[in-house]
Amino acid sequence: MFQTFDPAGDPSVGKPRVATLRKWLSDNDLDGFIVPRADEHQGEYVPARASRLKWLTGFSGSAGVAIVLKDRAFVFVDGRYTLQVRQEVDLDVFAIESLVDNPPRLWIGDNLGKGARLGFDPWLHTTGEVKALRAAAEKAGATPVPVETNPVDAIWSDQPEPPLAPVELHPIVFAGELAREKLARLAAAITKEDATHAVLTDPSSIAWAFNIRGGDVPHTPLALGFAILAADGNHRLFMDSRKFSRTVNAYLTQLAEPHEPADFEPAVVKLAKGGAKIALDPALAAEKLRMLVEENGGTVVAAPDPARIPRATKNQAEIAGSRAAHRRDGAAVAKLLCWLDRQKPGSLDEIAVVTKLEECRRQTGEETQMPLRDVSFDTISGAGPNGAIMHYRVSRTTSRVLGDGELFLLDSGAQYQDGTTDITRTVPMGKPTQEMRDRYTLVLKGMIGISMLRFPPRTRGCDIDAVARMALWRHGLDFAHGTGHGVGSYLAVHEGPQRIAKTGTEKLLEGMMISNEPGYYKEGAYGIRLENLILVSPAEAVGGGDIDMHSFETLTLAPFDKRMLNTELMTREELHWLDAYHARVLAEIGPMLDGEALAWLEKACAPLPHDDKTA
Amino acid sequence: MFQTFDPAGDPSVGKPRVATLRKWLSDNDLDGFIVPRADEHQGEYVPARASRLKWLTGFSGSAGVAIVLKDRAFVFVDGRYTLQVRQEVDLDVFAIESLVDNPPRLWIGDNLGKGARLGFDPWLHTTGEVKALRAAAEKAGATPVPVETNPVDAIWSDQPEPPLAPVELHPIVFAGELAREKLARLAAAITKEDATHAVLTDPSSIAWAFNIRGGDVPHTPLALGFAILAADGNHRLFMDSRKFSRTVNAYLTQLAEPHEPADFEPAVVKLAKGGAKIALDPALAAEKLRMLVEENGGTVVAAPDPARIPRATKNQAEIAGSRAAHRRDGAAVAKLLCWLDRQKPGSLDEIAVVTKLEECRRQTGEETQMPLRDVSFDTISGAGPNGAIMHYRVSRTTSRVLGDGELFLLDSGAQYQDGTTDITRTVPMGKPTQEMRDRYTLVLKGMIGISMLRFPPRTRGCDIDAVARMALWRHGLDFAHGTGHGVGSYLAVHEGPQRIAKTGTEKLLEGMMISNEPGYYKEGAYGIRLENLILVSPAEAVGGGDIDMHSFETLTLAPFDKRMLNTELMTREELHWLDAYHARVLAEIGPMLDGEALAWLEKACAPLPHDDKTA
Repeated sequence: MFQTFDPAGDPSVGKPRVATLRKWLSDNDLDGFIVPRADEHQGEYVPARASRLKWLTGFSGSAGVAIVLKDRAFVFVDGRYTLQVRQEVDLDVFAIESLVDNPPRLWIGDNLGKGARLGFDPWLHTTGEVKALRAAAEKAGATPVPVETNPVDAIWSDQPEPPLAPVELHPIVFAGELAREKLARLAAAITKEDATHAVLTDPSSIAWAFNIRGGDVPHTPLALGFAILAADGNHRLFMDSRKFSRTVNAYLTQLAEPHEPADFEPAVVKLAKGGAKIALDPALAAEKLRMLVEENGGTVVAAPDPARIPRATKNQAEIAGSRAAHRRDGAAVAKLLCWLDRQKPGSLDEIAVVTKLEECRRQTGEETQMPLRDVSFDTISGAGPNGAIMHYRVSRTTSRVLGDGELFLLDSGAQYQDGTTDITRTVPMGKPTQEMRDRYTLVLKGMIGISMLRFPPRTRGCDIDAVARMALWRHGLDFAHGTGHGVGSYLAVHEGPQRIAKTGTEKLLEGMMISNEPGYYKEGAYGIRLENLILVSPAEAVGGGDIDMHSFETLTLAPFDKRMLNTELMTREELHWLDAYHARVLAEIGPMLDGEALAWLEKACAPLPHDDKTA
Repeated sequence: MFQTFDPAGDPSVGKPRVATLRKWLSDNDLDGFIVPRADEHQGEYVPARASRLKWLTGFSGSAGVAIVLKDRAFVFVDGRYTLQVRQEVDLDVFAIESLVDNPPRLWIGDNLGKGARLGFDPWLHTTGEVKALRAAAEKAGATPVPVETNPVDAIWSDQPEPPLAPVELHPIVFAGELAREKLARLAAAITKEDATHAVLTDPSSIAWAFNIRGGDVPHTPLALGFAILAADGNHRLFMDSRKFSRTVNAYLTQLAEPHEPADFEPAVVKLAKGGAKIALDPALAAEKLRMLVEENGGTVVAAPDPARIPRATKNQAEIAGSRAAHRRDGAAVAKLLCWLDRQKPGSLDEIAVVTKLEECRRQTGEETQMPLRDVSFDTISGAGPNGAIMHYRVSRTTSRVLGDGELFLLDSGAQYQDGTTDITRTVPMGKPTQEMRDRYTLVLKGMIGISMLRFPPRTRGCDIDAVARMALWRHGLDFAHGTGHGVGSYLAVHEGPQRIAKTGTEKLLEGMMISNEPGYYKEGAYGIRLENLILVSPAEAVGGGDIDMHSFETLTLAPFDKRMLNTELMTREELHWLDAYHARVLAEIGPMLDGEALAWLEKACAPLPHDDKTA
């Protein structure tokens, strides 16, 4: 299994560790210290060595910050984790704060006294974050103090070593563009920013630019490291060479000067001393890098990671790979749904479904000679009220039986060498209520609204987020997350910068992959989410139009449960979209199934009854 | 007539005036000077005295800037005015630049040499504008120089005097809240911003806060002046006392200390010297005010005009007034449309329609004892290709006959004491083509989409702008303006901050009035725009909803032309909306009509044929 079901987080760790940390703080003349979830790469997953927040507090969520003061300590989490954090940390040691309503930069103003010295590790906070922190601290009369040694590392006696998973080449048939061509594009972008160098701190950008993949963190094939790209083409890669085979080493050496991680800091210092103008992404690059550059006579050019947009706009090889991955993944999901349909309500629990789904994906991957490399995130398998917890992670202590009359929400994804998938379907166990069916239909209308949309170039994700909500809004309902996130190509399943959300101010460019996943959550009762991945594409021309529009190609291929529909709430256009989608699902994944599964799929994809369509 | 049809702009004025200005610049050691369209109040309309851009260049548009250098001169305009500017200025004197693609702050970087001194009048530019200007000039090595005397005023020998239109009280029955209560609310807001004072530079805010109206600029009942509001309630009003009757003077004196305009600058200086913290809106307040405050020891608090949101969220009296104004105005528009329907194609020109429309409004106003005070802007009366010019102003040289087979676009509004209106209808002269009908229907679908929307509190205008475009987008079409602008209550027809547009980041709050006006423009052929004013209201609850939603109440009451519909493109819901709207129009404005006009309205508002609705 690529996923464990261990109850995460252990509230007993906090008390002694916080005490030891306080001792260190007092020895080092600090009044407090900030421990973020992030490591120096600011990714969604961190290796065990960098799980400092979890080690110190017990809290295992994917976003959060702790602040430890002399006499008080706090854990900040967002709405997803308000329940979980209370189970995972010792509430006698930590008070819980809202990362959204009262984030550290606001909290500091009210809670730090005049003259207070708040330590932070400048490798673990971005320059943008520290700027906000400094402004807030200044207002309160306090001082943020960057430390040389991370105190958690200092007191964590059995801290794991950095990961050393082997690096592999990402074959050109999947990458679609040679690394040297990508690097030349990036060098040109650096010149355009009027910089001499750019530091890539995001391993996802390094993986993309060098056409390599690794295994240093769960569920995303990243090799942790840094790169310094140069406008003149003299690139440097800082990565532990123990991760390289001889072939990989030879391959990388032709693209960049290879260096050990320990050489990274001196290399930045040396460039800075030579007067380099170094591009750093304020949302990604560590404050420490800014300090190293500016304190040594260099200039920081604040500019987005140059690989961000090229990586997000997939080329034809990546798109072809993704289509193949989605056919394979759709077949695996169909097998699972067929199997699930045959089980009696009350006979299965959430973990059993996750286990079976991974088995379906492994089996389909083996049959098609494209083995499952990993799941792209821990499967969200939520029965009944667990489905209403948006980022639910099932463990042995929470796993719930799929009961009769309940809805079951299954959000999962896979990593194949040709693409990353992410799909959510919601199915009824037994007979759903009319309310469940109505709300499922409203969510589906939102998803179809996005799917059918045609829109002009330059449209941003925030311009169309409401399209996924209008039907729910009409009935006094909404959902409290964005409509979609960007997705990588055998990379991170959550990849920026594009998204469909109120905050999605990036333009949707051709080749961007993005999720389309409206939902509805009734707390304590059930959750509905329907998710397809979609690809920004040139729209088919319509007669007489003025503008070449964009549209979305749907990549994900698996049926929606017709038992959940109230077709009276749907327009003819929506019903036709659904019939056409189901016909396509059958045509594309049917050939990978046989026997019972194929029969099930044929039924699941059959057109809706004719009279529904005159509605 | 409240509107003239004189051809605006005279290209012959530029040459001699620019020559005189250059002499002044050279005498005053400047390399150039910026002449904006704005005056010190940054409103849409300026009095004759402040029409410096037009006086200097001949350009009469409502937005633009000139920059005069020693050997070259430029006029910057946006897309609306690219054609017009070429007719109004001497192209031997002025080069034309784009205010959007190459605005002065970018242009300066490429066009000002190192050491160049560019003069500007700090009363005519906002602090925000000057900040951007300084940053750009600094990059180019040039210096923006604020001047003490505006050189255009210095060389304009027959410059008109400031306007002195009488000020009148805005009756409490229409204002709905006593001025002293409004002023108390504003004083509290100033305290909340941690300021001691706020300068109101926008006459619209002064009119709202003091419940007064004036007549200093066309089409908006403003009395030009400034106010300094104080957190402690010691407010000051700076306005020429010749505008006040004895009653008005007595009324205003109980609210604020009255001062002549010449006292304004010394008053700001005195407050600054006393250490005042003065709130200035960076998007409205003159740079000169910032200079006066900061150079005299005061502190500038950058904060939005405190009257902005209170003014935008209309109270029950203002809403009731607006409903009455819209019934009256709808009756006048219906009379016009009935009259227009009886004319033979080819028998009328654009000016004749404007004249007749004003007559209909005057007559209806007199009949209902609520006389037309002004039109709320110059009527846009565009036949055939003129309809495709988004901000077309008809003059004797452009007025076009409404030809057979053409579309005619009529966008107009009125100022009544109880409310400001703004309505656009598009009608066919003779038989429209299928393309015209299809596109009209797509525009109408967008307008209905906004009208039917229900949305959660905190929704911003930018979140829903796409709803008005989706139908057009599906057919490869779009329109190049926002969907809607805020509207004042017997105040400016374009009033911020709310709007429905990609840039509309203000939340739509209950009581905000806004236009709903999608369009489609085929250059050289025809224009379609359909506009109703709408009011943000609590939505009727629907069974089982989780959230109290907002919806829009439609204020405007006039039929849409059924000859223009292709009902096959519409959903049942849209057809039902249209029938219900027409029924309401008939019920609400029918009683104000009789004879031919009533018969026409009954026909125009009759339900669509039944089989259309099964489509």
